[in-house]
Amino acid sequence: MQQSRRISTLNGDGDDGWGVFMAARKMIDEGIPVTELTIGEHDIRTDPTILAAMDASARAGNTGYAMVPGIDALRDHVAARVQAASGVATTRDNVIITPGGQAGLFMAHHATCDEGDRALFIDPYYATYPGTIRSVGAIPVPVAARSRDGFQPRADAIADATPGAKTLLINSPNNPTGAIYAPETMAGIAGVVRDHDLWLISDEVYDTQVWEGHHISPRSLPGMEERTLQIGSLSKSHAMTGSRCGWIVAPEEVTGNLIQLATNTNYGVAGFVQSAGLFALEQGPAFEERIAAPFRRRRQIVLDLVEGQQVVRAIPAQGAMYTMLDLRATGMSGEDFAYALLDKHRIAVMPGESFGKAAAGHVRVALTVDDDRLRTAVATLLSFAAELAEQAAK
Amino acid sequence: MQQSRRISTLNGDGDDGWGVFMAARKMIDEGIPVTELTIGEHDIRTDPTILAAMDASARAGNTGYAMVPGIDALRDHVAARVQAASGVATTRDNVIITPGGQAGLFMAHHATCDEGDRALFIDPYYATYPGTIRSVGAIPVPVAARSRDGFQPRADAIADATPGAKTLLINSPNNPTGAIYAPETMAGIAGVVRDHDLWLISDEVYDTQVWEGHHISPRSLPGMEERTLQIGSLSKSHAMTGSRCGWIVAPEEVTGNLIQLATNTNYGVAGFVQSAGLFALEQGPAFEERIAAPFRRRRQIVLDLVEGQQVVRAIPAQGAMYTMLDLRATGMSGEDFAYALLDKHRIAVMPGESFGKAAAGHVRVALTVDDDRLRTAVATLLSFAAELAEQAAK
Repeated sequence: MQQSRRISTLNGDGDDGWGVFMAARKMIDEGIPVTELTIGEHDIRTDPTILAAMDASARAGNTGYAMVPGIDALRDHVAARVQAASGVATTRDNVIITPGGQAGLFMAHHATCDEGDRALFIDPYYATYPGTIRSVGAIPVPVAARSRDGFQPRADAIADATPGAKTLLINSPNNPTGAIYAPETMAGIAGVVRDHDLWLISDEVYDTQVWEGHHISPRSLPGMEERTLQIGSLSKSHAMTGSRCGWIVAPEEVTGNLIQLATNTNYGVAGFVQSAGLFALEQGPAFEERIAAPFRRRRQIVLDLVEGQQVVRAIPAQGAMYTMLDLRATGMSGEDFAYALLDKHRIAVMPGESFGKAAAGHVRVALTVDDDRLRTAVATLLSFAAELAEQAAK
Repeated sequence: MQQSRRISTLNGDGDDGWGVFMAARKMIDEGIPVTELTIGEHDIRTDPTILAAMDASARAGNTGYAMVPGIDALRDHVAARVQAASGVATTRDNVIITPGGQAGLFMAHHATCDEGDRALFIDPYYATYPGTIRSVGAIPVPVAARSRDGFQPRADAIADATPGAKTLLINSPNNPTGAIYAPETMAGIAGVVRDHDLWLISDEVYDTQVWEGHHISPRSLPGMEERTLQIGSLSKSHAMTGSRCGWIVAPEEVTGNLIQLATNTNYGVAGFVQSAGLFALEQGPAFEERIAAPFRRRRQIVLDLVEGQQVVRAIPAQGAMYTMLDLRATGMSGEDFAYALLDKHRIAVMPGESFGKAAAGHVRVALTVDDDRLRTAVATLLSFAAELAEQAAK
C-alpha cells in the first residue's frame, strides 16, 4: 500500500542524526555506564509543587474537554508575560495554547506554508525543523550561520535564499549553538523579513536561559508584530519537558485559524496540564532563575576547562543549555569524534552534523548532568581531542 | 499577510455547525439555566483511581520527555486489547500512542493522503472530519448514509465515490447516529476498499458502548489488516476526554512513519498521562461497562418516550452516547427546531445539519445528563415537536 509522499519523505535523506544518541542508549540498556550529554533535558524533574497543582486541578474535576484555544487564565498570563517582555500589546486573542513547542512549530508552518512553498531556517538547527517543514508539504531551505561569526546569521545570506520563500524560522537563544542573536543580527533579520514579505516564526523556548547580553523578541521590532509567530513553551523554562504545554503568540487573525487547526489536529491541551502550567508561570522569575541556574554554572565549568588548552575552541554559549565545541583541529568530523568518544570513554555528545552542515567538525555538549560529572567528562573529552590532534599532526 | 490556503479554507463553507452549542453556552454564561444535550462528554469526571495513578507516576519522576511512540507497556497493552477483540495478531510495533483520537485522525490522513487527493467519509459525520481531511491538503468527499437505512452506509454509494480517492473514513459505533455497522455493511465496505485499493481509516472510539448487536473491527476482515488504520482512544471508554490519550493501530511500515510524523508535529504524549491510561486499561471490562452503563440506560429512556407518540421517529441507537431523532414531521430543519427548542425551552441539542446533509431534519440528543433531567428534557422536546407538527398541518 502506498503511503503519502509527504510522510514517506519526512526524513529527507534518511539520516535523522540520532545515531550517537541511540548507540549510547543501547549501551545503557546493556548495563554499560555512559555519561549522556546529548538531549536537552534537565537533570531535575518537574517541581513537586507544580505536580501538586496538576493533581488538585484534576481532582477538582478538570478532566473534561478543555477549550481548544486554552483556558482563559493561562492565555491571559501568557499574553501578559509576552507583553511585559516585548512591550507589544498582547491579549488572549493573540495566544493559543499548544501541546508543546513542537506542535507550535508545526502549527505555525501549517498556517503560513502551502504545498511546495519554501521555508527558510538557520543551520545549525534543532533536529526536527526540516521534518516539521516537510510535514506541511513545504520545502526546507537551510541558511548557514558560520562558526567564525559565533553562529550569528547574516542578513545577506538570508536575503539570498528568499526567492519563493514564505517563512523564516529562527531560534534565539539557539539550540544547538547557544548563540543569542545580537541587536544588529535581529534588526538584519527583521529587515529581510519585511523586505521580502516573509512570515517570521520565532522559536523562543530558551528565553529564560540568558547568560550574556539579552534576548530580543523580534515581534517587538518595527513592522514585525503583524508577521511574527512566536513559539513558547514551559519545557525548558520550568523543567516541564514531558508535560507538552506551549503556545503560539500571533496576530489575532492567525490565532483564529490556528484554533480551527488545533480543533482538527489535536483538540488542545489537557485542562489539568494547563492548570499546572498556569501555576508554574505564576511562580515568577525567581523560580525560572532557579531552573536556569545549573546551566549558567556548568557553562562556566566548560569554558574554564576549554581555556586551559589550545586544541578545542568553545563557541561561548550566550544562552540555552548547551555548549558547542569546535574540534576541527583533530581533523575529524563531529560524528567520527562523537562515536570515538563514546566508544573509548563512554561519553555521549551530539555531533554537530546532527544539526546540519554548518556545525560540521563540532560537537554539542548538553549541560545536563551534575557539575562534577560534567567537569570530568569535558576534561576527558578535551584530553581525547588533544591526543587525536597530536596523532593527526604526525 | 497571506496565510496558507490550506489553513484559510479549513472550515470549507465557513459554518462549523456549532451555532446552537455556542448560543447555549452564551446563555449559561449569562446565568440562564440550559439543559445541554450537545457534546459527547460524560456527566462524570475521570475516576479518582486513574487520577491517583497519574499523580503517582508524575511524582515518581515521570515528567521528562516520554518516548514518542508511547511507553512500551501501554503500546503492549493496546496491542493485546486490539488482538483480543479482533483476532488479528498485533504487537507494539503496530501501535503508536497519540495525543487523543483527534490527533490519530489527523495523523492517519497525513500518512495516506497527499495534496489534492480525495478522502471519503460517511455523512452524517463527526464535526471535525472534513476539517481534518482539509488540514492535510486533501479533498473531503462525503458519502451519504440514509436515515431510512438506519444510517448504514451502502457499498454501492461508496463505490460511486471512489474515483481519485485514497482513503475511506468510517466510524462504528457511530457518532452522531448511534448506528453500529452490521456484518453485511462492514463486509460491503471492506469489499469496496479492497477493490478500489483504498486505505480504511476506522474510528472505533465508541467500541465499548454497544447496546445491540456487536462491533466488528474491520481490520479483522480478509485482506484488510494491511490497509486499515484503526483509531482508538480512552476518552469515551474511560471518561478521560480531557486527558488527550489515544492510539493508531496500523501496519508496521505505517507506524514507523507515524512515529516520524509525531516527532515533528507533537512529540508524543506526557508520560504521566500514559501511566494513567495504562492503569485505566488494566481495570478491565467491568470498569468500562460501568462507564458505559448510564448511556445504555438513558438510551432506553429516550426510546420509551418516543414509543409513546407518533410525530418524532427515533433511529434506535445501537451504540455510542447519542440518539438521533427524526423531526421531519414538524416540517422544520433540525437547525430551526434546535434553535426554537433552545429559545422556548432552554434545551440544547445538536442539529442534524451540524453533521452533514444526510441528517437534515434530525437532531442529535447526547445522553449526557442524569436520567431524570434527560427524561424531562426529551418529554418536553417531544411535546414541542407535536405542537409544531400540528401547526404545520393546519
